[in-house]
Amino acid sequence: MAVAHPDGQISRPIDAVIKLGGDVLEGDALLAAAAEIARARAGRRLLVVHGGGPQATALARRLGIEPHVVGGRRITDDPMLAVVKRVISGLNVDLVAALRAVGVPAFGVSGASGVIRAHRRPPRVVTGAGDTPIDFGLVGDIDGFDVDLLDALDARDALPVIACLGADASGMVLNINADVVASQLAGAVRAGALVACTAVGGVRRDKDDPATRLPRLTIAEAKAAIADGTVQGGMIPKLEEAFAPLEAGVGAVHIVAPTEIATSLLEPGSVGTLLVP
Amino acid sequence: MAVAHPDGQISRPIDAVIKLGGDVLEGDALLAAAAEIARARAGRRLLVVHGGGPQATALARRLGIEPHVVGGRRITDDPMLAVVKRVISGLNVDLVAALRAVGVPAFGVSGASGVIRAHRRPPRVVTGAGDTPIDFGLVGDIDGFDVDLLDALDARDALPVIACLGADASGMVLNINADVVASQLAGAVRAGALVACTAVGGVRRDKDDPATRLPRLTIAEAKAAIADGTVQGGMIPKLEEAFAPLEAGVGAVHIVAPTEIATSLLEPGSVGTLLVP
Repeated sequence: MAVAHPDGQISRPIDAVIKLGGDVLEGDALLAAAAEIARARAGRRLLVVHGGGPQATALARRLGIEPHVVGGRRITDDPMLAVVKRVISGLNVDLVAALRAVGVPAFGVSGASGVIRAHRRPPRVVTGAGDTPIDFGLVGDIDGFDVDLLDALDARDALPVIACLGADASGMVLNINADVVASQLAGAVRAGALVACTAVGGVRRDKDDPATRLPRLTIAEAKAAIADGTVQGGMIPKLEEAFAPLEAGVGAVHIVAPTEIATSLLEPGSVGTLLVP
Repeated sequence: MAVAHPDGQISRPIDAVIKLGGDVLEGDALLAAAAEIARARAGRRLLVVHGGGPQATALARRLGIEPHVVGGRRITDDPMLAVVKRVISGLNVDLVAALRAVGVPAFGVSGASGVIRAHRRPPRVVTGAGDTPIDFGLVGDIDGFDVDLLDALDARDALPVIACLGADASGMVLNINADVVASQLAGAVRAGALVACTAVGGVRRDKDDPATRLPRLTIAEAKAAIADGTVQGGMIPKLEEAFAPLEAGVGAVHIVAPTEIATSLLEPGSVGTLLVP
């Protein structure tokens, strides 16, 4: 199977990669996201990627599995990977069901079925966590994507919904952050846009005041807004995660709430936060 | 998407549908089954189907979810379906990983992604459980299979590994027994054989004595063996589950242990129990 990373050989341009955070995979947010993806799909080729971190943490707690932390970093050990596999894969079924319920021929794809090729992250020194290399456990760094498989689904008019698990050449399953998958996948296929959807939506100067939304930023403006304190706290990583895909050739990154997915593509900048190179 | 049930329009004959019970999806049994499927695949077109009932029951217990039983029958309510979705989908990732580890380009498919079309089972009176119709909850009866999708994977040399969840036209996810899926799928595609793999393997007159294995039976012989008491207890349903696929045109049903999957196809009757029409 052909692989395309860092540059894709996709058969038909991909208009947008849509990344759904775990916090929008349940309840009303899930229904809103599904309806918006149905609307966004008219005339567009999409890929959907999702995580499920909050739900994995919640199930691990219910099962009495303590997070394994080394040097301030969470480690994916065997019990945690077992939980992550179940939770991410179960959420994939729910998301596919929600999309099919609104008429989208969604098709669930586990990244571990060869779609996300990865290798186990080697132990490494982490800034601010001492000099000892940290072994993150069963966490993957991405080598490539099976673009042929995505094309085969596209040829059948099926919308791939990709669960963020990877596997190495030996079949070992690895946990991979959904933001990283979405960012690298969008870059690999040179998607027109990456839509990063979380419950909180766009970036604001004051996180509690919707009127302080930052509608549109270039990378340079975003870096300046971080440097001068215009953007603070949890809003900073939301911006920073957009830099890599933009630098990899993705046309735009939209940071939006579930109700804004389609609108962000139809009227860029009118909702959430639009980042451009 | 075209659907094929009761008669399939598969592009290339399917030599065998291999059904793995939950009891062979972990540990050494899983490794043995994966190795045998790799061996069985040489020159053969296969489909793999699996359940995960024991693991779903175990996780439900750990989470304090009590089985909901009506009239002696287990009901799939919302909390139980949530567990089943996670467990079956997580086991699918494990099985795919085990197969990929031995070089089989396995691809995980959730039946709920449109591959298993089903409807919610209407309440019905069950023999031996009184006159009140029993509502089984979120349990599906199968309407058909997306054979086109299986063909698309075959065209890519990928082995479909199907998780036994279904969905109705509205996207509602339904729990479906893996034996029923395997049986109906084998019938729908007129598979050459159905290989039903469980830890205990073939049918024996004395379940504790391997020397009493019944190597080969016709349907008529199997019915006689049940009627005259030659086969007893838990061995009876193993035989009975073979009747429907044989009557639907499947050439043979092999009841085998994980180490016997390939051998049952290479040398029919030499291991486990072979049932023929």
